[in-house]
Amino acid sequence: MSRLLIIGGSDAGISAGLRARQLDPSSTVTLVLADNFPNYSICGLPFYLSGETPDWHNLAHRTRDDLESQGLALLPDHQAIRINPAGKSVDVVDRKGQRQKLQYDALIIGTGAQPITPPIPGLGAGGVFVLHTMEDSFRVHDYVVGRGARRALIIGGGYIGLEMADALTHRGLQVTLVEQANTVMTTVDASLGRLLGEELKQRGVDLVTGVAVEQVEPVEDALRVRGSKGFDQQADVVLVVVGVTPNTGLASEAGVSTGLKGAIRVSRRMETNLPDIFAAGDCVETWHRFLERPTYLPLGTTAHKQGRVAGGNALGDKAEFQGSLGTQVVKVFDLAVARTGLRDAEAKADGRFSPLTIETRAWDHKFYYPGAHELTVRVTGDTTSGRLLGAQIVGHRSAEVAKRIDIFAAALFHRMLVRNISDLDLSYTPPFSSPWDPIQTAAEAWVSEAQKKNGNAVEVDSATGKHPYVGHPPSP
Amino acid sequence: MSRLLIIGGSDAGISAGLRARQLDPSSTVTLVLADNFPNYSICGLPFYLSGETPDWHNLAHRTRDDLESQGLALLPDHQAIRINPAGKSVDVVDRKGQRQKLQYDALIIGTGAQPITPPIPGLGAGGVFVLHTMEDSFRVHDYVVGRGARRALIIGGGYIGLEMADALTHRGLQVTLVEQANTVMTTVDASLGRLLGEELKQRGVDLVTGVAVEQVEPVEDALRVRGSKGFDQQADVVLVVVGVTPNTGLASEAGVSTGLKGAIRVSRRMETNLPDIFAAGDCVETWHRFLERPTYLPLGTTAHKQGRVAGGNALGDKAEFQGSLGTQVVKVFDLAVARTGLRDAEAKADGRFSPLTIETRAWDHKFYYPGAHELTVRVTGDTTSGRLLGAQIVGHRSAEVAKRIDIFAAALFHRMLVRNISDLDLSYTPPFSSPWDPIQTAAEAWVSEAQKKNGNAVEVDSATGKHPYVGHPPSP
Repeated sequence: MSRLLIIGGSDAGISAGLRARQLDPSSTVTLVLADNFPNYSICGLPFYLSGETPDWHNLAHRTRDDLESQGLALLPDHQAIRINPAGKSVDVVDRKGQRQKLQYDALIIGTGAQPITPPIPGLGAGGVFVLHTMEDSFRVHDYVVGRGARRALIIGGGYIGLEMADALTHRGLQVTLVEQANTVMTTVDASLGRLLGEELKQRGVDLVTGVAVEQVEPVEDALRVRGSKGFDQQADVVLVVVGVTPNTGLASEAGVSTGLKGAIRVSRRMETNLPDIFAAGDCVETWHRFLERPTYLPLGTTAHKQGRVAGGNALGDKAEFQGSLGTQVVKVFDLAVARTGLRDAEAKADGRFSPLTIETRAWDHKFYYPGAHELTVRVTGDTTSGRLLGAQIVGHRSAEVAKRIDIFAAALFHRMLVRNISDLDLSYTPPFSSPWDPIQTAAEAWVSEAQKKNGNAVEVDSATGKHPYVGHPPSP
Repeated sequence: MSRLLIIGGSDAGISAGLRARQLDPSSTVTLVLADNFPNYSICGLPFYLSGETPDWHNLAHRTRDDLESQGLALLPDHQAIRINPAGKSVDVVDRKGQRQKLQYDALIIGTGAQPITPPIPGLGAGGVFVLHTMEDSFRVHDYVVGRGARRALIIGGGYIGLEMADALTHRGLQVTLVEQANTVMTTVDASLGRLLGEELKQRGVDLVTGVAVEQVEPVEDALRVRGSKGFDQQADVVLVVVGVTPNTGLASEAGVSTGLKGAIRVSRRMETNLPDIFAAGDCVETWHRFLERPTYLPLGTTAHKQGRVAGGNALGDKAEFQGSLGTQVVKVFDLAVARTGLRDAEAKADGRFSPLTIETRAWDHKFYYPGAHELTVRVTGDTTSGRLLGAQIVGHRSAEVAKRIDIFAAALFHRMLVRNISDLDLSYTPPFSSPWDPIQTAAEAWVSEAQKKNGNAVEVDSATGKHPYVGHPPSP
């Protein structure tokens, strides 16, 4: 029997605990939770605030009963305040100030990330919120309802900012979104960010790009927000959603090594530098499958996978995290925007690639069948090796954008050549696709352009008559 | 300059011609078309007949002008009647009986398939139709409109039968569908066929399974259809859609070798046994990527790919067809049904596998976000090697079934282990998926069941501590 202690009850922590109990039902698994909302879907907060998910209880991936019936012991409303690696214990304190020391055989740190608060004067004012926890969302909800807020201003045009612009518009508020860059969603290329910007504007969002917010101040019953280029607007509620930073103070103090952006350094087995201490989720560096080096890519999907690996290994398994590709999708009103892998600039910055990015547009399914929508697909490949580096898609929410990016993600997982994407045997019927799927026509357009630029380098097989695809293991 | 002659103007022939012109704009490419509808989307016929695509001209993938502007010379309404391999020529005849001899340097046979007419007495009666060409669909359309048909009877519950049941119901006809097997769509497992059957019945289709039609006869203004188990029903129009057979008489007579189901034998370069004669599409044996042997799998997607390979190779390229996995999707009213790879019985029949199939159900996206639908996913894997063998999905048409099966198809393309499917970095946002996509929870359920049945055989890595996945080529 092994005592596993887990700090954190979100995606990584819960996945770790469930995996441990699955592998060894005799293990004791205790989770220290900072709040009272174990295993809640943080990604669902915008939909609670939009009113589309009116009962916040439904945001739980699993109920407390589910978790406990699988043998997880939960310590809600407990803060871990000190890890003692030498004594293999963790000091925790509850909300009443009661302390206790918990012994472990193995520890998993899943403390997640915390929202970044930029150095803008006035963000401490009432009516200014970050949005990261259930409690944050209750505060926003109560404030919006309690004050009868009509005007919301969102600082930050990343994916949470966009989701909240959608959500609060859905709720009936007038929304202003202020983004410092020239386009929203800077995790995708500007041409796609502009498509998202158009969608926001068409849905009545007052979109302000290229403006840095410089001050927030309470005025009468409202908040006055001022920024560069003379920006000056009032709102009833302000959301600050400019990203997250790993929550690793506790780990650092105990001697756990950190790296990129302060995230905990881990092996692919999710081991930290200290014996019997593992870490997973938004608090750790994430191994990038394609780059084969650590990055910081906090995503729920990754947290689940890493938690699972950590939970098994904490009990002696030897699993390895297979890496992230940064695959992501967001719904913004009627659009879906998705990406996987590297963009042009990211690939250039790495130094090992000669990237080329090609944008194509194609109908999601045969135009003659009703309901066709145009997809915009950007394919990034390495003109030297011919390998796929990444892809981005924007299209209607009904256009299977999410699972189309996943085909690219599966291709990247196997380091496919761009040209081989057209060899994939993808499904077709006129209501859902074309005989060549839009991702294949996009890949073909890339190959054609790469050949123009690079001559035979991409057609490495033309000399030997051999198809250059090398990722096909022997048959059973 | 090279003279390329292509017999057939559907998917394979047109793809071949376009590829040839792309590789060598000085080549002369002539297509012999049996009808006057080059490059029409045969898969779109049900949507023309349903009324969803009212103008049949829109069914053309490309217009004749598009094709001619890309340098394809079209000979519509010409029947190829003799291939002379020794003299490198083809005799053709037009609808007026005018003959001519066309010389070639390379020939591509893309004669496609023809509908099977089962040996049922009375199928020659007026009002009984097959459905394979544009002209077939005009005949059905004119008959239904001209006679004011109200009752349709469809013989055959394969994908065209199901699409036509959907289409004619959409058009306002009362539809009876008669299938000899106990479930429709016998290309998927019976549990999924039953889900489709339920959908048909809910939409008002009179579904008759387990009945073999034995006779059709004209009675007064209608057709009387009788079958086993006392089946006896009248209809105004009868469709016979029980599958296709490769159209290879012309090729055989010229000495081209045929194999499975009479389909033309080809190499992966789409070469026949005769010099400078290639073949592609529904008239050829199709190399199965996973089985690594020929099969007969007539599909439009495959015809496009094979045509492309043949068109290049006819001009001296050395491309290889990368193989089919039989990936397919069909919309049936509000359901989508899709498959890729092998089913349990198919894998058993091959003799090299110990297949296990597991069925799971999961929401297509987080249940708390509106519009969630349940997906039924069947995963087939080999319990000896742990490799994925195939997958089948049924779910709502809005549930991204088509592109979900394509992720499995991409996994099969790379011979993934079932357990590694959970390592794929797939996209997630509550409106489109869950942190573990339903295809991943299905894969996990399979792994769990396989372990129970087979002990450590699937966990081949537990001894070495090495992850068993071997399909990851070296990084660039």
